[in-house]
Amino acid sequence: MVVSPSSTEEVSEIMKICHRRKIPVTGYSGGTSLEGHYAPTRGGICIDFGRMNKILKLHKDDMDVVVQPAVGWELLNEVLAKDNLFFPPDPGPGAMIGGMVGTGCSGTNAYRYGTMREWVMNLTVVLADGTIIKTRQRPRKSSAGYDLTKMFIGSEGTLGLVTEATLKVTTKPNTTSVAVCSFGSIKQAADCVGKVVTEGVPIAAIEILDDNQMLSINKSGMTTKKWLEEPTLFFKFAGTPNAVKEQISIVQKLAKATGSKTFEFAKNAEEQVELWSARKEALWSVMAMREKDGDHVWTSDVAVPMSRLPEIIEETKADLAKSGMFASIVGHVGDGNFHTIILYNDTQRQTAEEVIHRMTKRAVEMEGTVTGEHGVGLVKRDYLNHELGENTVDAMRRLKFAFDPLCLLNPDKVVRVEKPKPGEVSEW
Amino acid sequence: MVVSPSSTEEVSEIMKICHRRKIPVTGYSGGTSLEGHYAPTRGGICIDFGRMNKILKLHKDDMDVVVQPAVGWELLNEVLAKDNLFFPPDPGPGAMIGGMVGTGCSGTNAYRYGTMREWVMNLTVVLADGTIIKTRQRPRKSSAGYDLTKMFIGSEGTLGLVTEATLKVTTKPNTTSVAVCSFGSIKQAADCVGKVVTEGVPIAAIEILDDNQMLSINKSGMTTKKWLEEPTLFFKFAGTPNAVKEQISIVQKLAKATGSKTFEFAKNAEEQVELWSARKEALWSVMAMREKDGDHVWTSDVAVPMSRLPEIIEETKADLAKSGMFASIVGHVGDGNFHTIILYNDTQRQTAEEVIHRMTKRAVEMEGTVTGEHGVGLVKRDYLNHELGENTVDAMRRLKFAFDPLCLLNPDKVVRVEKPKPGEVSEW
Repeated sequence: MVVSPSSTEEVSEIMKICHRRKIPVTGYSGGTSLEGHYAPTRGGICIDFGRMNKILKLHKDDMDVVVQPAVGWELLNEVLAKDNLFFPPDPGPGAMIGGMVGTGCSGTNAYRYGTMREWVMNLTVVLADGTIIKTRQRPRKSSAGYDLTKMFIGSEGTLGLVTEATLKVTTKPNTTSVAVCSFGSIKQAADCVGKVVTEGVPIAAIEILDDNQMLSINKSGMTTKKWLEEPTLFFKFAGTPNAVKEQISIVQKLAKATGSKTFEFAKNAEEQVELWSARKEALWSVMAMREKDGDHVWTSDVAVPMSRLPEIIEETKADLAKSGMFASIVGHVGDGNFHTIILYNDTQRQTAEEVIHRMTKRAVEMEGTVTGEHGVGLVKRDYLNHELGENTVDAMRRLKFAFDPLCLLNPDKVVRVEKPKPGEVSEW
Repeated sequence: MVVSPSSTEEVSEIMKICHRRKIPVTGYSGGTSLEGHYAPTRGGICIDFGRMNKILKLHKDDMDVVVQPAVGWELLNEVLAKDNLFFPPDPGPGAMIGGMVGTGCSGTNAYRYGTMREWVMNLTVVLADGTIIKTRQRPRKSSAGYDLTKMFIGSEGTLGLVTEATLKVTTKPNTTSVAVCSFGSIKQAADCVGKVVTEGVPIAAIEILDDNQMLSINKSGMTTKKWLEEPTLFFKFAGTPNAVKEQISIVQKLAKATGSKTFEFAKNAEEQVELWSARKEALWSVMAMREKDGDHVWTSDVAVPMSRLPEIIEETKADLAKSGMFASIVGHVGDGNFHTIILYNDTQRQTAEEVIHRMTKRAVEMEGTVTGEHGVGLVKRDYLNHELGENTVDAMRRLKFAFDPLCLLNPDKVVRVEKPKPGEVSEW
């Protein structure tokens, strides 16, 4: 059963009934999550927030905006742009505030602006028993009591249902630009990133696309430009006109010193859009390569300490090459976070699973995390023990039981609350 | 009894004994907190982290550093400076990492760099029963499971004892500068801040000092310069040389347009130190005004939505003037956060309490918070109900009971776990 409430009070009434009758509840907003977050495991009802899609109040002078959970970040930014404002977190297209809070999402802007965690001022949340709480009023910072706001961010709908959020917004940068620069190897590209980051150049974003990704973009014909099929860095710059000019010239020098083959930067708005288009079309270009029934695309992400990034990307690429599947790599390289985009057929399902398993294990062994921005959902949940240790996962379980003792809210996500059956969890 | 452990394992052993014997435990590091955080309310033992004062490992390429709780932020920055790195959170002098995690501190750098919450990658924590957990490995970002790191930040030692922390660090800005500019009224100064913030000038800090504060600095003779005794804005700039120059010229124009009387900016490093000295000596200059036995200084802080700041400062100043006590105001004005520094005598204790009570209430009524960066400790804890509502405080209490069911860790702080006796909580 899908229920479509229109207010916080209605969500509260629904939860009171479900609590009394012990009915599991799964929340749903944009539906763009990648780890099975909204797949109900025990039946029950789905709360579709689709009707709660209003931007309730923009406080321009306070630089914040109050929204309902089914507001998409792209629409929000269109509205904010009229007042020269913007909201930085930029996950996949179609994502909505409710789910963005749930996964603790980020995107290409995280390097400069931080993740969802840094942009939420308060949340109105309906708890498992229907109780309504608001985590905070509207100060831009606070040290008053436990930080419940941040506790709910990234909790994947397992501790409460977000029915309203006040988000920080910021002023749109005065000037922006884009530069694209290709290298002979991932290692060289990573060296360039290291130099730019440690030099303290305040760039807005640095993304890496590997040779396969550039090939796939050329092949798809989704951009007007043809690209060198080499590991490529995409830089975004933002600031005053002079600052942007200065940043580009510093980055160009650093790129040359680390062996860049090409360095192109946008001289106007159209060129900016053109240069960034390859980054924008990355996922879609691989999707376009699906040819026959049973062809799918699997996107997974991990993050490691910055210095380990070239190593893990190279090892993962070698593993993927051996697997016989086509795959590309796209990374938020300034955060040590990257995605594999794997094209596989139903017949290769197990091979794909195994490659991703090995990549995840590699990240954990390099002091990294099983997911930088997608969340753990149903599968990666079982990796948490390896990443963090049993005691830490037990502490997470305490949190779950404290807020949802009957395990009604998105059950079986984030942490298991029942011991797995023999064979249910694959070997590490 | 004061216990001085030298390792995480020793802290765990101590907690196992205290858990078995139900002995309350209060942690202690720098001792600079302002809200009675480390005052034991039920006897028990104090864990002094003084011997755990090592910087364990600097990962330059990953831009992070692993430290023990009794490392001070000033010392840490001295060490980091050798590698051109720095750690932004800058609370009161003497504060140490353990306590800084506990209060979720911030300081003048928060406007540009965020608070303590944004700079901790992981924590090693000893729980109430002696269990050791590490909240995360070392990726710069992660969406893997509940965000226990942020749950412990700002929990004032009531959910666990921090024995190790991995902190993000950043590159020291290439160039910095300072500008000071005085106005005829708080309102004009606040208008200037609003313009600078909404224009998106990426300044490093904006601080406001009121007329009384400037008077007190002149009177104390703690700076070489004499100052206009008017509401004064202190700006810090950081970036490349050209960016800093550009920022100063934009801010100068905006200041003039909002009625600044003076605008001075530093042309070299010495002038920078001189211009910033007034901000640095603010608290000490009021401390120096204590004349007789029983004279004290009381610092309290609140935060409100940015647009309400001039109003709350003016109302609070009027209230303070009526009270007959000398008091100054210093604000992290870009965050809507300010401090009153009240000079009072034992005989004026109740008057001081009442003024602070009214200021706190004013902040809550303006959709603000009872503390922007000091934490709630013992007294402001009872304001949380008014700021957040009973249901939200109950949710906080669930968290406390989930992690410390015997209430051994810094009992009576953040939330009450027992009903107050009649008359114990003053009226709202």
